[in-house]
Amino acid sequence: MPASPKAEFLSVESILQEHVPADKLAQVQGVLYGLNCGKPVAAVPLSAELSSAAAAGGYDLQAYRFDAAPEQLRPPRIVRIGLVQNSIKVPTTAPFLEQRQAIHQRVRELIDAAGAAGVQVLCLQEAWPMPFGFCTREKVWNEFAESAEAGPSTRLCQELARKHNMVIVSPILERDEAHGQTIWNTAVVIGNNGNVIGKHRKNHIPRVGDFNESTYYMEGNTGHPVFETAFGKIAVNICYGRHHPMNWQGFGLNGAEIVFNPSATVGALSEPMWPIEARNAAIANSYYVGAINRVGTEVFPNAFTSGDGKPAHKDFGHFYGSSYVAAPDASRTPSLARTLDGLLVADCDLNLCQQLKDKWGFRMTARYDMYAEQLARYVQHDFTPQVIRDPSLE
Amino acid sequence: MPASPKAEFLSVESILQEHVPADKLAQVQGVLYGLNCGKPVAAVPLSAELSSAAAAGGYDLQAYRFDAAPEQLRPPRIVRIGLVQNSIKVPTTAPFLEQRQAIHQRVRELIDAAGAAGVQVLCLQEAWPMPFGFCTREKVWNEFAESAEAGPSTRLCQELARKHNMVIVSPILERDEAHGQTIWNTAVVIGNNGNVIGKHRKNHIPRVGDFNESTYYMEGNTGHPVFETAFGKIAVNICYGRHHPMNWQGFGLNGAEIVFNPSATVGALSEPMWPIEARNAAIANSYYVGAINRVGTEVFPNAFTSGDGKPAHKDFGHFYGSSYVAAPDASRTPSLARTLDGLLVADCDLNLCQQLKDKWGFRMTARYDMYAEQLARYVQHDFTPQVIRDPSLE
Repeated sequence: MPASPKAEFLSVESILQEHVPADKLAQVQGVLYGLNCGKPVAAVPLSAELSSAAAAGGYDLQAYRFDAAPEQLRPPRIVRIGLVQNSIKVPTTAPFLEQRQAIHQRVRELIDAAGAAGVQVLCLQEAWPMPFGFCTREKVWNEFAESAEAGPSTRLCQELARKHNMVIVSPILERDEAHGQTIWNTAVVIGNNGNVIGKHRKNHIPRVGDFNESTYYMEGNTGHPVFETAFGKIAVNICYGRHHPMNWQGFGLNGAEIVFNPSATVGALSEPMWPIEARNAAIANSYYVGAINRVGTEVFPNAFTSGDGKPAHKDFGHFYGSSYVAAPDASRTPSLARTLDGLLVADCDLNLCQQLKDKWGFRMTARYDMYAEQLARYVQHDFTPQVIRDPSLE
Repeated sequence: MPASPKAEFLSVESILQEHVPADKLAQVQGVLYGLNCGKPVAAVPLSAELSSAAAAGGYDLQAYRFDAAPEQLRPPRIVRIGLVQNSIKVPTTAPFLEQRQAIHQRVRELIDAAGAAGVQVLCLQEAWPMPFGFCTREKVWNEFAESAEAGPSTRLCQELARKHNMVIVSPILERDEAHGQTIWNTAVVIGNNGNVIGKHRKNHIPRVGDFNESTYYMEGNTGHPVFETAFGKIAVNICYGRHHPMNWQGFGLNGAEIVFNPSATVGALSEPMWPIEARNAAIANSYYVGAINRVGTEVFPNAFTSGDGKPAHKDFGHFYGSSYVAAPDASRTPSLARTLDGLLVADCDLNLCQQLKDKWGFRMTARYDMYAEQLARYVQHDFTPQVIRDPSLE
């Protein structure tokens, strides 16, 4: 019997909107969501057709705008980005082809909406074409692995990229035929002309509770690539890499202006971290972050345990969605719903990145030499921590 | 004519408490403040005498508790820490000795309250014995600089450390007589026996708006020391260092279990970052963070400008207080008030640090070798960013 997920609330934002008076809500939002060029992050109107399509399709649709100050020597560089969060569409007991096709169909609908909204760079969630079966430790889910260059999910994204003149970041489970059929957790970056620009493999692999993902794939070997696309320099920090500040920094040092963080994470485990880490990265690295989380509760055929002494169970918990965009000036959009598929659209003036670098000067005050030296010492076996012991202690 | 600070609200927490119904408040707080061992961070009752003293003294007093799971091979290691935020007590036009004595008197009152509450490790705010005159670019404020080892503020803290058997972290403006009367932004760490264990100098110096603090002092030369005290291994990340994830990491690699972040920062500049950075550091490094911010609006005798085209003015803005403690499990306390002096008390079971390292494994999945190598390349003049350019672009 599949576990029945407990009732989940829609979003923190919806609760605050309902109960806090407007003047005080502005104070709360000023602290919680920040200001962009001195004002709350502005909502952007979308067409009535798009709103109707979202209502009919049962998905959350929100759009916002991040401004930058006008400059004299550069025009604004406004890029419209899109984040897609989606649940699985048929039970995990259905034939795998049917499962994938159902997800493809839904994601096509969401990307088509993004295309109609003028999105130029879009990112999907981690391992989007499949249920997130990695909690089960069953290798059968590896059947969903595909070629990064020529698999069915890449082909779908190529078709939609060409159709909408859109860069699409497609995080999949990769089967690397050229290297012994190995499995990777990979984001494929598809250019607006439909070509595969390249791929990045998840650098940091969790071994937490249900999720020892190294059962399925190992630490990535692609470094911290930044992809120079028609619409800006982007990078991808996949899921658990968001807990690693140096991973965020790695993409920053290579020049990223937008870093996507496609994720799959559940409430009990990580929800209080979710509003923190992507935003901290945007601040510290003076770039935009698009944080995307899977949504829904996925029930698997066979029970599994979590290393926490609780009875075996068939679902890992509720993937709480809540995708959002964080800006380098510490402002952010509200979150998409915790319980619905969704498309978040954000206009990002990339000039804001350099403006924040100039304002705060984090790159110039960072003392990379000191940290390079510390890390070089730290990785040695004979590293001795710098500890000053109170000599008056026994 | 001194600028009149605009009315400031008490805190985000007070607004939410007033308007959001209890059941929904629990949902909001679960996301915004996290859970500690599965429950909201618990308030700790203090004596009626302490509460009365706080009410009579006009300061905010709050106390919380962070638990850890019981272990079989270690007893709990509960340390009671205290954070003090204080405004200046007489106008900046008063004689300097009077200014310092008035602050000393108030801070003595707050530390005595902390002693009565059983606080074992206490940290004061950045440059606590003086107004934060660095926005003025006037060198006259350097008169407040003192010897770290033997200045009047150190002596006061030594007296109180002995009186209360308390470790005290005292962030001051340091005059280094042994090195040409140079000025540093320094935290002095005083042991519970009243001895000066050592000091740490601010690693990262802001050059932002009003605040080019390098007018006064340069980047610190003390590395990332961890001070082994009678009550745990502590470190100090002074103010602007909180924007630098590698600075937080430096203290973590050296074994800190509690890192204090004594600060002086104003609303318009940084308030949306305040709930983010200290908490991200606690999560990423599996240690506690005590984030402390100065409170109040300080009006200076001579007008100064801010490099933003606005008219000259005599105050830099409102220091918004809001001190809080963040735990390695992503939970945190509410904030002290934005407008009042305050003492925040928190019981921290230090066992939680290792428990979170074991749970999340960030240290083991961090790939320090890769980052040591990246930074070694980055600091070279001929560093070439790893960029993959879409070949289909012109």
